[in-house]
Amino acid sequence: MISKAKIRYIRSLELKKHRMAEQLFVAEGPKVVEELLRVLPPKLLLATDSWTPIKTAFDADEVISVTNEELCKVSFLRTPQQVLGVFPMFNTGKVSISENITSELSLALDGVQDPGNLGTIIRIADWFGIRHIFCSPDTADVYNPKVVQATMGSLARVNVVYMGLETLLNELPQKFPVYGTLLDGESIYCQELSAVGIIVMGNEGNGISAPIRQKITRRLLVPNFPEDKPSAESLNVAVATAVVCAEFRRQQL
Amino acid sequence: MISKAKIRYIRSLELKKHRMAEQLFVAEGPKVVEELLRVLPPKLLLATDSWTPIKTAFDADEVISVTNEELCKVSFLRTPQQVLGVFPMFNTGKVSISENITSELSLALDGVQDPGNLGTIIRIADWFGIRHIFCSPDTADVYNPKVVQATMGSLARVNVVYMGLETLLNELPQKFPVYGTLLDGESIYCQELSAVGIIVMGNEGNGISAPIRQKITRRLLVPNFPEDKPSAESLNVAVATAVVCAEFRRQQL
Repeated sequence: MISKAKIRYIRSLELKKHRMAEQLFVAEGPKVVEELLRVLPPKLLLATDSWTPIKTAFDADEVISVTNEELCKVSFLRTPQQVLGVFPMFNTGKVSISENITSELSLALDGVQDPGNLGTIIRIADWFGIRHIFCSPDTADVYNPKVVQATMGSLARVNVVYMGLETLLNELPQKFPVYGTLLDGESIYCQELSAVGIIVMGNEGNGISAPIRQKITRRLLVPNFPEDKPSAESLNVAVATAVVCAEFRRQQL
Repeated sequence: MISKAKIRYIRSLELKKHRMAEQLFVAEGPKVVEELLRVLPPKLLLATDSWTPIKTAFDADEVISVTNEELCKVSFLRTPQQVLGVFPMFNTGKVSISENITSELSLALDGVQDPGNLGTIIRIADWFGIRHIFCSPDTADVYNPKVVQATMGSLARVNVVYMGLETLLNELPQKFPVYGTLLDGESIYCQELSAVGIIVMGNEGNGISAPIRQKITRRLLVPNFPEDKPSAESLNVAVATAVVCAEFRRQQL
């Protein structure tokens, strides 16, 4: 049994200002919740009888048994899925640039707006072993429920940091490779892609912003096929991220 | 000025049964509408003053000037975009298997449910020069407004056919390569991918269905990185489609 006040409280976390004030976010469904439970004790867990929890022990401040009807009242999903968790924000935004990124491949997102795209990119980073994603302040909020759901739990394994990308790029060592996908880039198949570097992906409509574009030292293009045929003008940003990351990793095999 | 009856009529096309009865579908926004106008005369076009039509001449049975407020009443989008077109369905579902697909690379979708994924896959096919997508009857409807929007206009250049995939695969010549992504597949980077064949992609949750799985002759896997590290369990189906198609095309360069 869940109180009306608690329902209102959880639903308020759909809005960023309430999430920020409480430093909490919502995740739903066995897949996403269970991945988060591995790394993060939830503040509150609502579960129907149909949820069979994973064997991993977890500490929750509070677990409430709910009916499916009650879960529907709280859920942000059209079809609620057995379990809903309220978790503390854990991407603290602290990362040592010198220690953490100068020896590996990372991603930077310059104004990716669509929550589904951001969530999908986090899942892609996880798949391709990319541990850090730097997001410009105007990128979608990682704790937006639509982002959380689209990560399919990968949020638990990828570090997402919000900061000005100019600041970030200025702090990198000289000659550190800064990759970016640009319409006038060179095919990813015709250049050597390094094991260490940062890949900048831009906004859905406008691409990489002018000040950041100036900092790109390695211009990338995913070629269409055949090149002389009229085709889509561009790939979706998450799709382009995947094709680019896959090629970086292929070249390291 | 648009009548209430016409608003109701257009809005009814959000449902598949009405689309099927009328053989019409809705597309919105300059990008998507203008791509369709290149190949398809619309039945009806609603446009605000801010829409600057492309120079290509087009025939429309009816063009109505609307205010932004009127467009909001009709639109399926949260933020309507200048123009909305009602178009006749044009993917007639007729394709000669022997002529059309045995000399090129095609896609088959086995129960892809999410409209955003289907739309994104159509855009990917367009980018990588794949002309035909075969969809099992339980795949999302290509004329669903969310699919149409996610194609970003690529719908105009890709042929989408609904048919039983068993029937399709049974009609293919002996030894015609049938590729499919499977959890126990072999890395796409460790095998030769042919310029001719069909690639089957499965449902978001369950992958390729058992009867179709039996017909796969070439099992594919997009490897994660590094392979011994815990990572996402899988890639989103549209993302996996893109990585696979990119690798097919790279090997043909």
